[in-house]
Amino acid sequence: MAPVVNRLAVIGQGLIGSSITRAVSANKVAREVVVTDASAKVRKTVAELGLGIAKVVETSVEAVRGADLVIACVPVGQYGALAQEIGPHLKAGAVLSDVGSVKGAVVRDMLPHLPKSVHLVPAHPLAGTEHSGPEAGLADLFENRWCIVTPLEGADEDAAETVRQFWKALGAEVETMPVKHHDEALAITSHLPHLIAFAIFHTGLKHEEVSQSEVMKYSAGGFRDFTRIASSNPTMWRDIFLNNKEAVLGVLQQFNADLSALAKAIEENDGEMLIDALSKSRLTRRKVIEKEHISVTSAKREHEDAFPIVRPYGDD
Amino acid sequence: MAPVVNRLAVIGQGLIGSSITRAVSANKVAREVVVTDASAKVRKTVAELGLGIAKVVETSVEAVRGADLVIACVPVGQYGALAQEIGPHLKAGAVLSDVGSVKGAVVRDMLPHLPKSVHLVPAHPLAGTEHSGPEAGLADLFENRWCIVTPLEGADEDAAETVRQFWKALGAEVETMPVKHHDEALAITSHLPHLIAFAIFHTGLKHEEVSQSEVMKYSAGGFRDFTRIASSNPTMWRDIFLNNKEAVLGVLQQFNADLSALAKAIEENDGEMLIDALSKSRLTRRKVIEKEHISVTSAKREHEDAFPIVRPYGDD
Repeated sequence: MAPVVNRLAVIGQGLIGSSITRAVSANKVAREVVVTDASAKVRKTVAELGLGIAKVVETSVEAVRGADLVIACVPVGQYGALAQEIGPHLKAGAVLSDVGSVKGAVVRDMLPHLPKSVHLVPAHPLAGTEHSGPEAGLADLFENRWCIVTPLEGADEDAAETVRQFWKALGAEVETMPVKHHDEALAITSHLPHLIAFAIFHTGLKHEEVSQSEVMKYSAGGFRDFTRIASSNPTMWRDIFLNNKEAVLGVLQQFNADLSALAKAIEENDGEMLIDALSKSRLTRRKVIEKEHISVTSAKREHEDAFPIVRPYGDD
Repeated sequence: MAPVVNRLAVIGQGLIGSSITRAVSANKVAREVVVTDASAKVRKTVAELGLGIAKVVETSVEAVRGADLVIACVPVGQYGALAQEIGPHLKAGAVLSDVGSVKGAVVRDMLPHLPKSVHLVPAHPLAGTEHSGPEAGLADLFENRWCIVTPLEGADEDAAETVRQFWKALGAEVETMPVKHHDEALAITSHLPHLIAFAIFHTGLKHEEVSQSEVMKYSAGGFRDFTRIASSNPTMWRDIFLNNKEAVLGVLQQFNADLSALAKAIEENDGEMLIDALSKSRLTRRKVIEKEHISVTSAKREHEDAFPIVRPYGDD
């Protein structure tokens, strides 16, 4: 397969950025790869690790010079400053993309700093591990994972296709949708669950009667499912919540209404309503999974049980 | 090891009851085992399966006759009716125990129907699988799992010890605590997480813009952790919520306050508060786990990573 890109720049060499660097070399996606990171320590580590064909340079400006495709991999809160820095140095016709968990805010922050001759094509690979930093990167991190590409209205179709081909070459399953739709989909599938997990963790650890160690000890009953995601990176999640505020608060309002309805049924001993509500989630879940043959991480992982039903305690 | 019990009766042969029957035979915990189930079909299945040394009888009354230890394994809402049925037929000095996920309601429902000469010692094995019914039982279901024994105030110490020894003989790790404390601990570690999971499932599946199949597709971002427990048995959970109402609504109130505080910080762009709150859960979690060397399912499973940190998406 011919390389997708002639000259590629990857800015930021944390888990995602350094995984891209590794994957690009492994899959021969670009003829030339130039990478950098704001941290001198990270740049040194990347140079020592010798990630494939990548050349490590000192500044973002130097990295983007002459690049046909630039993938910015910085925290959600830093895309504006980066665009301001690199905007004037991007090649005419260059394609600029990112990996942020929120798309609306990234577009809002970057677009004003970009010349008209540059094509911004936002993207979000749904991949990661529990580790961070350049040492933690993996060449196969994106294989069989979703990557959502969100071209702007009226965007150049060739530029969008370049980004799609780039992620496909890295092994990802690519979906295309509008920016706003991405942010709403992620608000319900990822951001709200995280917000709730953080909240229940607080509730569990300040119970007056039940000690913290008891909460941990007996957490297999359900609490544990929440603590896994409640230990995610605080800075990253602050940025996500604040930058996808409208969508997150919107689904939160709906969630509060749904939770209140269940609480009211308990309060009023409405067993019928409870059976109805609790059955609905079970049935809908099965219906959707069976009808659409959905596998969670990707269409390729059909052999995985996407939704293992774990009922930790049973009376029957 | 000498058998813990001379004659044992197990009433109800669903997942938990039939697992007890299997485990008792495998571990030679009783000299004689008599089992039954309200369903003729289940009784037939158990007889055909030939679960170890167990004798299958037609009625609960027949099963408890002459039994030294009776373990009732019926849904939380049915303990009152069962106690009424077997109460007059229990042997003087017999020990009666159960496996219900709620202890206060079980005691409230059973105690009035029991003769003074019978010792009620409630218990709750924290074990189960995603399956139900007698075919699904496992002889090692309780191995290295917690079993919480909740003797009543002023209870006979020998009776409580019999129940503890019984569960230890089945491989469980036994903890003793008051009834009320059990119900509060389970409200936060199991019942509230389930209630929240049911609610967020509703929220996810009725989004106006985002389709059900999209919610499932991208659920690896966090939503999936909730759907696992949201597909639990509706009847069982209705019974649990209604029978542990006070404790569940109590922790729910605290949860609502904790969630509102986070929402307010997002609304007001209070990044500092968010970092503080999000970091606290991570730090507390680590502190508690490290200091107390807590493993979730039991003290024996030290090799398991009790709380694997899974961060499905990453920007850094």
